[in-house]
Amino acid sequence: MAPAPGQGLGRRVLGIDPGLTVMGYGVIDGDGVNSNAITSGTFRSHAKLPRPTRLREIFEAVGALIDEHHPDDLAIEQHFVAQNVRSAMAIGEARAAAMLAAATHDVPVYEYPATTIKEAVTGFGGAPKEQVQRMVMAHLGLASAPERLDASDALAIALTRLATFRHEAMIASRT
Amino acid sequence: MAPAPGQGLGRRVLGIDPGLTVMGYGVIDGDGVNSNAITSGTFRSHAKLPRPTRLREIFEAVGALIDEHHPDDLAIEQHFVAQNVRSAMAIGEARAAAMLAAATHDVPVYEYPATTIKEAVTGFGGAPKEQVQRMVMAHLGLASAPERLDASDALAIALTRLATFRHEAMIASRT
Repeated sequence: MAPAPGQGLGRRVLGIDPGLTVMGYGVIDGDGVNSNAITSGTFRSHAKLPRPTRLREIFEAVGALIDEHHPDDLAIEQHFVAQNVRSAMAIGEARAAAMLAAATHDVPVYEYPATTIKEAVTGFGGAPKEQVQRMVMAHLGLASAPERLDASDALAIALTRLATFRHEAMIASRT
Repeated sequence: MAPAPGQGLGRRVLGIDPGLTVMGYGVIDGDGVNSNAITSGTFRSHAKLPRPTRLREIFEAVGALIDEHHPDDLAIEQHFVAQNVRSAMAIGEARAAAMLAAATHDVPVYEYPATTIKEAVTGFGGAPKEQVQRMVMAHLGLASAPERLDASDALAIALTRLATFRHEAMIASRT
């Protein structure tokens, strides 16, 4: 059974690395300094299924993660680049399915561009994917890397939310 | 009160012209030869609202249209072009919200590219928007044009589904 939301460490965040074919997810409890990974993984939707069916699968999978883990926030990558219009629309559709799952469960959504995520996790906005993965493992004390980069990217996105939350809380406490 | 689905004329279709800021909709009863417009219009979401809130508004508005009119099918434009990656993602997100409303209500979704819609309605895949609008009015016996092009585009998309449905039914009856 998953621990109660934010147990011990302030806040629970569900990070989502959006994609129509493979979507990464990661759930983290943390306060911006210490963080525990609760779970992470990926889910796939099959390219042969009709688009609405694939979107419904993503919507329901993210909804099931929310029902199981009760995150305080959902954090998702904000894409500004894509190979072409077709892939940009596919990313937009997958993102929308995940964001709608959060919105219909009244979970606030936070969007971060890739450079912000890399900077929050590694201190450098241009860090390569492998370095992001190593730093995710270090932050969370993971002995082995998640099986897929999509999963460690989702953990990186969740860590970014915790880092910005801590920053916001510090600013708020000074005013 | 709306008539029962497909009353008199075989099939009821909800057409959606997807957009994040303005979304057109139109409900038509028809058999591919005769068609009646039940309702059409647009809904807007405000650019200042957070993206997940805007998507939830579209999701709920399309869901409310389905609850009110009980369409047999939802028909939506399939976009292959966009000004840039940013607008492609916005279109994808709006499309996903509408398709998810259909998928979660178990309403089948049919997607048509713009050329197919223009050809179905005017006989010419390269027809200008104004000609599409005039032909929509002629097909549906409308005395005046819908207030916005987005609404008549949505009616055109619904008419396309009825035309292809009739075509499919004719082919099926010969086999």
